[in-house]
Amino acid sequence: MSKRIETYLEERKILVDKALKEFMPEPSGLAGDVIRAMNYTLFAGGKRIRPVLCIAGSEAVGGSADDVVPVACAIELIHAYSLIHDDLPVMDNDDFRRGKPTSHKVFGEAVALLAGDGLLTLAFNLMARCGVEKKGEKSALLRVIDLISSAAGYEGMIGGQVVDISYEGKDPDPTVVNYIHTHKTGALIAASVTAGTILAGGSEEEVQSINRYGQQIGLAFQIADDILNIEGDRNLMGKGTGSDKERGKITYPSVFGIKESRNIQRKSIDRAIESLNRFNERAQPLRDLARYIINRKL
Amino acid sequence: MSKRIETYLEERKILVDKALKEFMPEPSGLAGDVIRAMNYTLFAGGKRIRPVLCIAGSEAVGGSADDVVPVACAIELIHAYSLIHDDLPVMDNDDFRRGKPTSHKVFGEAVALLAGDGLLTLAFNLMARCGVEKKGEKSALLRVIDLISSAAGYEGMIGGQVVDISYEGKDPDPTVVNYIHTHKTGALIAASVTAGTILAGGSEEEVQSINRYGQQIGLAFQIADDILNIEGDRNLMGKGTGSDKERGKITYPSVFGIKESRNIQRKSIDRAIESLNRFNERAQPLRDLARYIINRKL
Repeated sequence: MSKRIETYLEERKILVDKALKEFMPEPSGLAGDVIRAMNYTLFAGGKRIRPVLCIAGSEAVGGSADDVVPVACAIELIHAYSLIHDDLPVMDNDDFRRGKPTSHKVFGEAVALLAGDGLLTLAFNLMARCGVEKKGEKSALLRVIDLISSAAGYEGMIGGQVVDISYEGKDPDPTVVNYIHTHKTGALIAASVTAGTILAGGSEEEVQSINRYGQQIGLAFQIADDILNIEGDRNLMGKGTGSDKERGKITYPSVFGIKESRNIQRKSIDRAIESLNRFNERAQPLRDLARYIINRKL
Repeated sequence: MSKRIETYLEERKILVDKALKEFMPEPSGLAGDVIRAMNYTLFAGGKRIRPVLCIAGSEAVGGSADDVVPVACAIELIHAYSLIHDDLPVMDNDDFRRGKPTSHKVFGEAVALLAGDGLLTLAFNLMARCGVEKKGEKSALLRVIDLISSAAGYEGMIGGQVVDISYEGKDPDPTVVNYIHTHKTGALIAASVTAGTILAGGSEEEVQSINRYGQQIGLAFQIADDILNIEGDRNLMGKGTGSDKERGKITYPSVFGIKESRNIQRKSIDRAIESLNRFNERAQPLRDLARYIINRKL
């Protein structure tokens, strides 16, 4: 399984990286700095999990990668924006990510802030522009913009971030940690795979099943992040481990302990794969991805 | 003229405020803080110039306010987000706006940052959701999302902001100040009125004329802001005047002097009104608004 999914991930990642390079502007003109900063974080070695999930969500119902690549790339822009803003001194104050200095360390806080804003705005531009070009799918595209903006917004990722920040140093609480993880990480991951299925013309039942799958792997993904923050290989991850504990972050291990966190994670993955019961072999990458997510090393 | 346009502005503003109240979520749940901060700045006494322009752009080609109110409100959300991020310590570091403490003074920098992100994201959600509800205008709506995200992004407002910040304290330069003003303020103002015309089904020639109008009043609007920052009534504006000079901002008065800035402003307004030649009486509010913009006191 491991080899098969790694090949799948690598092939789709190449496709996504190529499209991102085509979509992104070259730094030039008076505002070249902000474009440079946008590119810097976007091409700082991301795994492209969200865009690959979007493509896999399309393929699971017989769609192609081409159908969804602009939206898949837009989601990666949203992810990159969230990393830049998350790393700022007023938020998590991280100096390194994936072994490289974070945006504000390279470009200063003002440009980093604006680069995040620029990526988020460009994500919606990319979705709308790609839609203008493509005939006959406009209603699916608006639904996807609705879905993604909701998952990225105060009901989703931003809601999770504000709770993550404001509960630092407070007592570990199961309700709070579940809120943080399902919102901060889970919402956009679920939206990524669901968007692919919607754009590929999946039925309403298929869309709902894929969305349930996405919710479950999103939670498992963030628990994996929590565990890597404790047990991860510092050299492989290119950033310090143990930072969650230092900051008093509420995480699954801090609430449930590592052993029980792994149990919850496994149950989530089982539920995710169950959600794919109605799907045939075309959903195999999604099944493999679910297992891959909890076994990853970075 | 003054009385007529003030009544027009007031009536449309009431309509926009009512719609904004309906669209905005109530603060509740674990992430209530960020929703509270989003509402705080949005309802801190804005003039709603951009949404009113959007409505006027619709009415100029026979459309109604109802056709465009969700998009008009979304533009105001984008404007509010830009104020929050602009006021942050790493940007302009403003403690007051419209007589009230700025977002980060009330909610702290992290929540203010996220509230800005939340408003920007919700703006696109609002546009896409409103589109999902409305049949038959999907292609116009995607075009409008494209237009607005481009005007708000690195090619527009964000580009203007990064140049505005990075040229602080540098020698006054006509090319730079023109870039800053047409991008930081002009782009979103032009997009506001143009979006109204597109959504109301204006012809391509009408859309182009209205866009030219918008570019010109956008520049005049920002020059008016520059002049108010020097000569404005501190009590009326609810914030300190003279801040541009203190910070070494490049403005029209700093490059051209106040007298020549007023000349440039007048020429812009003349050109804006000329762009409306093909339009009948329904474009009268746009003509009045152009003159109002340079005579405003706050």
